[in-house]
Amino acid sequence: MNQNNNNQGPIGIFDSGVGGLTVTREIMRQLPSENLVYFGDTARVPYGSKSKETILRYSTQIVNFLRTKNVKAIVIACNTASAYALEELQQQLDIPIIGVIWPGAISAAAATKNKHIGIIGTAGTVKSRVYNKYLRQLDSEFTVVSKACPLFVPLVEEGLTEDRVTDDIAKRYLTEFKDYDIDTLVLGCTHYPLLRNTVRRTMGEDVTLVNPAYETAKSLKQLLAEKNLLNTSGEEVHHEYCASDMTDHFVTFADRVLPVRVDQIRVVNIEKYPTTIE
Amino acid sequence: MNQNNNNQGPIGIFDSGVGGLTVTREIMRQLPSENLVYFGDTARVPYGSKSKETILRYSTQIVNFLRTKNVKAIVIACNTASAYALEELQQQLDIPIIGVIWPGAISAAAATKNKHIGIIGTAGTVKSRVYNKYLRQLDSEFTVVSKACPLFVPLVEEGLTEDRVTDDIAKRYLTEFKDYDIDTLVLGCTHYPLLRNTVRRTMGEDVTLVNPAYETAKSLKQLLAEKNLLNTSGEEVHHEYCASDMTDHFVTFADRVLPVRVDQIRVVNIEKYPTTIE
Repeated sequence: MNQNNNNQGPIGIFDSGVGGLTVTREIMRQLPSENLVYFGDTARVPYGSKSKETILRYSTQIVNFLRTKNVKAIVIACNTASAYALEELQQQLDIPIIGVIWPGAISAAAATKNKHIGIIGTAGTVKSRVYNKYLRQLDSEFTVVSKACPLFVPLVEEGLTEDRVTDDIAKRYLTEFKDYDIDTLVLGCTHYPLLRNTVRRTMGEDVTLVNPAYETAKSLKQLLAEKNLLNTSGEEVHHEYCASDMTDHFVTFADRVLPVRVDQIRVVNIEKYPTTIE
Repeated sequence: MNQNNNNQGPIGIFDSGVGGLTVTREIMRQLPSENLVYFGDTARVPYGSKSKETILRYSTQIVNFLRTKNVKAIVIACNTASAYALEELQQQLDIPIIGVIWPGAISAAAATKNKHIGIIGTAGTVKSRVYNKYLRQLDSEFTVVSKACPLFVPLVEEGLTEDRVTDDIAKRYLTEFKDYDIDTLVLGCTHYPLLRNTVRRTMGEDVTLVNPAYETAKSLKQLLAEKNLLNTSGEEVHHEYCASDMTDHFVTFADRVLPVRVDQIRVVNIEKYPTTIE
């Protein structure tokens, strides 16, 4: 039963900037029949170093923008915004909204054998301890160790994904995980899958690297199916890209990450949108 | 003759974040009798990777906030905002406003002997070519070469001011200056004075490093004297610190940079301020 007659409505996806395109790629792969509207908050990026109050306000404005697009569901494709804004937004919205942290926790819980799990992310994600909370809900015996890696995003943005400097920084950030004998490490920031090789070299082959994007797309698909919201129209799909600031960087990054070409980006003055859900 | 009776009004200083505190330090040193109000746009930092339209809108909101503080003059203590917003704001404001780029250009012009000048800064500052424009106004024979150094700010923010990684990155950014035989290099971002040793090691002793902060404070002092706006009241001075987001980082950075202790930061919802000058 379809309660809101909005099966063809797009899925709204948002991130602080371009990193969420790594999650979008996975959604395109698992849900090729869905219309999508992506919003990157490029005028206020990054979120990882900012406070909960600020991130919640920004996320609320973005959700209000996405609702003007008649979205049928929303994915917070950003770990920091998932950590700081998901639970509040879920309580206030009448459409489904999911983040990347619960799917990341599910994946990590399925992957670990020795119950020692590492998390890497932004300062905000790590400080929020939301991964820790969710993982302990899944199994109270889990040992969870987390570490902020503030230079990883700038290094990816500078294109240094395969570089001795990035290897050097990765060693400093990740070495302490060896003391905790982790067998699973969550790439808890949407930029980090682009550093998979670097992290792999540092952590070795025995540690499973978890990218929450795959499980996020899978959760989304299940959710849409349960709510009878899958787009079965068979009509040609439409992908729209919006950002709060116009920079060449969006297209460059999209070209590295997406299987399709992004040829148009609409600039949205996001500060005009309300900071509360009405 | 004092036209607006506001000699005791504070000087407003703003930056995208905390970097402008390096300019504030110099203003405190050269103008110890002045009241100051500093605003750091920590909720929207950094500016260096964002567009002119966005930076002008943000700067206008900040100027409107500072005017509520009855400021007698404004210093844009940020190279990117100086590059993108100073000229427009100067045309619209009835109080003096200065940036850091003209003072930086004056200092570089005075320092160079062979008329080959290098500029390092954010992507925005370099793209704007405002340093080039001002330097050519000062002497059309100047050869000006500029280079964006996007990783320098994150490296400073991570505390890696003396580190092999920062040296490695500096070599990559700065090596091409050697082809141009520059004898003067402008540290065209308010974070870069904290990398003075690193840049010195890479460029050698024969290149003069210019920090626009000294000349900015000097220009401000001259300007206030000319307009008869110097605070000669002899009353105790007051320094106020405001930011758009509350983070521990502000105090940590201030402790590294300022000669005084910052014990209170007022959080301002900067998005509420008008995006035009009224």
